[in-house]
Order: sequence, then C-alpha cells, then structure tokens
Amino acid sequence: MIENPFYTEEVHGPYSYYSLGDFSLEEGGTIPNCQLAYHTHGTLNEAKDNVIVVPTWFSGTSKDYEPYIGEGRALNPNKYFIIVVNQLGNGLSSSPHNSPYPIAMSNFPKVRIGDDVRAQHQFITENFGIQEIALVVGASMGAQQTYEWAVRYPEMVKRAAPIAGTAKNTVHDFLFTETLMEAITSDLGWNGGNYTSHTEVADGLKRHADIWAVMGLSTEFYKQEKWCLFGVETVDQFRDDFLRPLFQSMDPNNLLTMGWKWQHGDVSRHTNGNLREALGRIEAKVFVMPIDEDMFFPPRDCRAEQKFIPNSEVKLIHSIAGHFGLFGGEGDFYYNQVDRYLEELLAL
Amino acid sequence: MIENPFYTEEVHGPYSYYSLGDFSLEEGGTIPNCQLAYHTHGTLNEAKDNVIVVPTWFSGTSKDYEPYIGEGRALNPNKYFIIVVNQLGNGLSSSPHNSPYPIAMSNFPKVRIGDDVRAQHQFITENFGIQEIALVVGASMGAQQTYEWAVRYPEMVKRAAPIAGTAKNTVHDFLFTETLMEAITSDLGWNGGNYTSHTEVADGLKRHADIWAVMGLSTEFYKQEKWCLFGVETVDQFRDDFLRPLFQSMDPNNLLTMGWKWQHGDVSRHTNGNLREALGRIEAKVFVMPIDEDMFFPPRDCRAEQKFIPNSEVKLIHSIAGHFGLFGGEGDFYYNQVDRYLEELLAL
Repeated sequence: MIENPFYTEEVHGPYSYYSLGDFSLEEGGTIPNCQLAYHTHGTLNEAKDNVIVVPTWFSGTSKDYEPYIGEGRALNPNKYFIIVVNQLGNGLSSSPHNSPYPIAMSNFPKVRIGDDVRAQHQFITENFGIQEIALVVGASMGAQQTYEWAVRYPEMVKRAAPIAGTAKNTVHDFLFTETLMEAITSDLGWNGGNYTSHTEVADGLKRHADIWAVMGLSTEFYKQEKWCLFGVETVDQFRDDFLRPLFQSMDPNNLLTMGWKWQHGDVSRHTNGNLREALGRIEAKVFVMPIDEDMFFPPRDCRAEQKFIPNSEVKLIHSIAGHFGLFGGEGDFYYNQVDRYLEELLAL
Repeated sequence: MIENPFYTEEVHGPYSYYSLGDFSLEEGGTIPNCQLAYHTHGTLNEAKDNVIVVPTWFSGTSKDYEPYIGEGRALNPNKYFIIVVNQLGNGLSSSPHNSPYPIAMSNFPKVRIGDDVRAQHQFITENFGIQEIALVVGASMGAQQTYEWAVRYPEMVKRAAPIAGTAKNTVHDFLFTETLMEAITSDLGWNGGNYTSHTEVADGLKRHADIWAVMGLSTEFYKQEKWCLFGVETVDQFRDDFLRPLFQSMDPNNLLTMGWKWQHGDVSRHTNGNLREALGRIEAKVFVMPIDEDMFFPPRDCRAEQKFIPNSEVKLIHSIAGHFGLFGGEGDFYYNQVDRYLEELLAL
C-alpha cells in the first residue's frame, strides 16, 4: 500500500465506495473488504428500469466517461440512472497500490473480467435492488466487461453497446498487451512489483507510454498531425507533455493487473471455449461499435464476433485518433457518433 | 569489435567485399576502410545496361533476397546483372560490431540512407564502370534506399520499385522505431553500447522481437493463425522459436545503427524539406509497391508519395503477413505478385 496522488478525488472525483466484503476471485484468491469505486448520474426510477451500467477501460476511471454523459446526450441523467463503475485494479477500486497486507502490491491476486462483472452485479443488486439493466455500455476493457455482462446475465441486460473492444481477446491483442507489460517489468525499479513509489518505475512507464503512442492512435493521426486534438501543438509535446506524464503518474502494479485481465478477457470461458455458443446466449439487443482506425481492436475482429450475436448490428465509429478516439480525441465529432448510435439502441 | 557467429558466410553467404576506402558520412564522421558486402547474380553485359541494384532491409542481408531472384523470376540472372548490396550497419558491411577502433561498437558514427546510396554508387561505378541502372528494387529500408537512388541519381536510374517503404519516414514510423530501439537501450546489459557479447542484451533483444510480433505482421495474420507460413505450428513457437531467437542472434549496436538510419530516411533533405520537389526530380519509371496489411508503411502513406512522382503507379501487394510479407511469409503467393509487377515494370 503506497501513496499515489493520481488516484484521488482531486484528480478523478467525485466518486463513492461500495464494500463487497471479502470477494473471491475466479483464478483463486480473495480481495478482503473489496471496494468498488463508482459514480452515479441521475436518479433510479421507481420501476428500477432506467439503469445504465458503464464499466471503465484500461487505466481509465469513472471521470473519463463524463464527456459521454449529460443532458442532450444519449446517456442523459435526466432520464437514466447511470452507474459508472471503476474496474478492480484501476487505482480507485481495490487495486495493488491501495490494498493492505496480505494483497498489497505484487501480492495482489489475478483478477478477470468475470470478477469485475460479478462484483458490479453484487453491487447494483445489493445496493440498489436492480434486476434489469436498460443498457450496458463501455469502451475497450469496458467493452470486454459489457460482453461479459450480456453473456453472464443475459436475462438482466436488455441492451449492450461494446465500443472498441472484443468478447474474446485476440492473439494479436495479447501480444500487444504483453509489450506494454514488458515495458514496465523490464525496469529494474519495478523490482518484482515491490517499489516504494511509482516514480521508481518512471522509465518503464515512459516506454509503456511510447508503445501506446504507436498502437493507440493511427498512422493517419500522425500523418495529418492531429495532436492538436489533444490540446498540444507538436508531436514532441504530445509524447513528452501528454502521453508520458499521463502513464508516469499511474501505478505500475495497477497497470499490470489490468493488463493481465485485458489479455485474458474471454466470454467463451462460460462455454468450454466455444465463442459462438457463448455469444449465442446473449438476449440483449447489441450494437457492436468498433472504431474504424483502431489498430488493435480492428473492426473486422469485432465484425467476426457480431456474426455470433443473435440480435445485433455493427455500428462503425469514425475516428482518426484510432483507439484513443474513445479518450475524447475528436471531441464532439466522436461523442456525437456514439450518441446517435446509443439513442437508436435505447429506442429499440 | 566483437565476435558474432550470426554475421558469417555460413549463415548469410556467399558474399564478397568491396573496399570504399575512407568513407565520409553525411552527419559527419568517417568509416575508415569502409567495406560493402555484396552478392551478385548473373553477368554484366557489354553495354552495361542490364544492371539491377537491390539494397537490404532492416536487419536483413543479401541472403534474404535469394527467393526474389532466379530463372523464371523477374529478377532473372540469365538476363540481368543483379547486385545485392548489404546496407552499412547490417553486420556484413561495415558495422558497429565488426569495426575496429576508433569506430567500434558505441563509437560507430551515425549513418544515413544517403550514405548507403553514395557508397553503393561509388562501388558500382568504380568496380564495374556502371553508368545506367535498369532497376533499383528494395523492400522496407531497401525501399528507402531505392527512393534515395532515384532522387539522388535521376539520370542513372531507369526504373525503381520501392516495396513496403517510404521516401520520407513518417512520424508514426519514427515513434514505432523508437520503441524498437528503447527495448534494446533499456537493457542494463546494453551498457551504453559497450557489451562484450550480444548475449548480454538478450532480454532487450527479446523485447525488441516482441514489438516486431505486434507491428511486423497483421491482426488478420494472428486471427487466421497463419504462423504456419513461417514453418511453425503455434503462436508460442512463432515467438519463442522464430522471432525471439532471430533477433537475439543479432548485434544490438547494429540494430540501433539501422534503426536511427530508418528513422531519418528522407529524400527531401535534397530540396530543403520539400518532398514534392524531391520526388519530382525522379526520372525513373516507378512502381510504388506497398503491402496492403502493412501496419507501419501503410498503403495510404505510400500513395501520398506516389502522387508526387511524375512517372509512377501504385501496385498493391496483398499479404496477410503484413510487413513481414517481404520476408517470405507467404512464399510464392507473395513472390509471384512481386514478379508480375517487376516484369511489367522491366518491360516498360
């Protein structure tokens, strides 16, 4: 358990905590007094049928979804009760850096996407008595959790919108994530996960950020010099003043916990490896929403999965920012596309 | 100067050496007694107009082009005098690992694509009295050298076929190459370039290979489990038995010399940064030949350059192996496409 000023309400707030008690994990191990950090928008109606669940992406927090939510948006808090839940390991919910003995730091157990979704299910049923979800929507690892929700609790999830993510992680994606993780673990300062401050792993986190610079955007983003989309004027600023400081402020063990989880995302665990059968269980109306320039969750990988989902369509999002489109790279040009698709889905 | 059994005729032969004398470099510095390793196929005719020059790619050698050359192929040694020249730094020509004091190892000077092409020009004019080149063809960094040939010696180069490479390196490509280089230099065993054996940098070279696994192929390659194209049965074998041992057999400083050179490839050096003007100088008939699944020299980047070349066409190569298609990933399916385009070009 170490201090890290990045994971605070000053940076990511406001949020609340729900205690799940001792939470047993799919891979074995337990998180004692497991905490889910969450933030809600809007009000749960009496019928409890206006619920939207939004799980977070790799390294992201509930704050990152704020631009997706608001009056005039599909995720309208005047109409819906929107629960944004921070995934385990993201630094706000129970994570390596904020957990005490015996699961602190390198002793934090392996967490799977399925654990997150079970935790979220326990939280919203226990805490709010929710039995029906109008929509689960999430991007990237949020999409992995969205698929898991729709496969694991098919009767509960009425609609699902996985953005820029897959139900079963691909081999290419596994290898990509491996390079992100190797960038961290190869830093001597990482010390097997037992550093005293994340700043000791600054070099590994820098290389982690540099790999994101290659795979997280798109070749066209750089060709058209679109770093202005992230509020900077040069590519050096984009890397040195935005990407590197962002990841260098994070906790290495947290990133590794999420990285491992991302690598092993796979709804076909429920059906002995049969992906078609797993996706065939989904009862929700599903809009599969890849980003056209995404270099590691490419549309064709998403389309291949969509074919196995009974009541589904592909809705392609355009963003020259590639995967980082979901991070707001293109502002309203991006959010308006998401809104249009989600409004259509919510009207079904 | 250290031993490395990878850079030998047993592995990459046969090849010959041509001594350029003391060779001055564009960035300053000199390679004393600079050696070009080369291999020729066929016979120079009396008119000396049947010459094909083939420069090598990153980490590649003259041996890698053998499948491109032969009777029944466009690069037919019965008809053409084919000179395959190893780029400076590739381990066969003068390179960090094989150079003596004062340019051994980390003291090896910076080399640019322009240096390679001037070296090759000196070699073929001095040694063979060649004044006309029927075709320059090369892949990846070989394409960078091909563009440099056509821009620098426009009256000499009749045809040019850059495969899977650009005339001016892109920002995305620069950042990608940076991650490849950081994987090496972050290994403590690299020791600022002053290791006693490349095996001391095995971990950095492993991570270097792992980044190639992500960017060198394509998402579809992995989706369709095409590692069989490289003679292995599983993705683990593809990484552990093919990619990692391949790069772990190489010299770290050599890779860094080539990496820096790749990053700085830019024919617009000749025209004060004006790429259109530089490419406008080309007199050769040019077939721009990107690979459709290439993740870092994507067709659209190549098309953008082709528009600036007076007498040119884009000829798209299909390969699910992405950039590694040029490495023979798809066997004759790939080579036959190259042949068809080169035959068409050579007939013009």
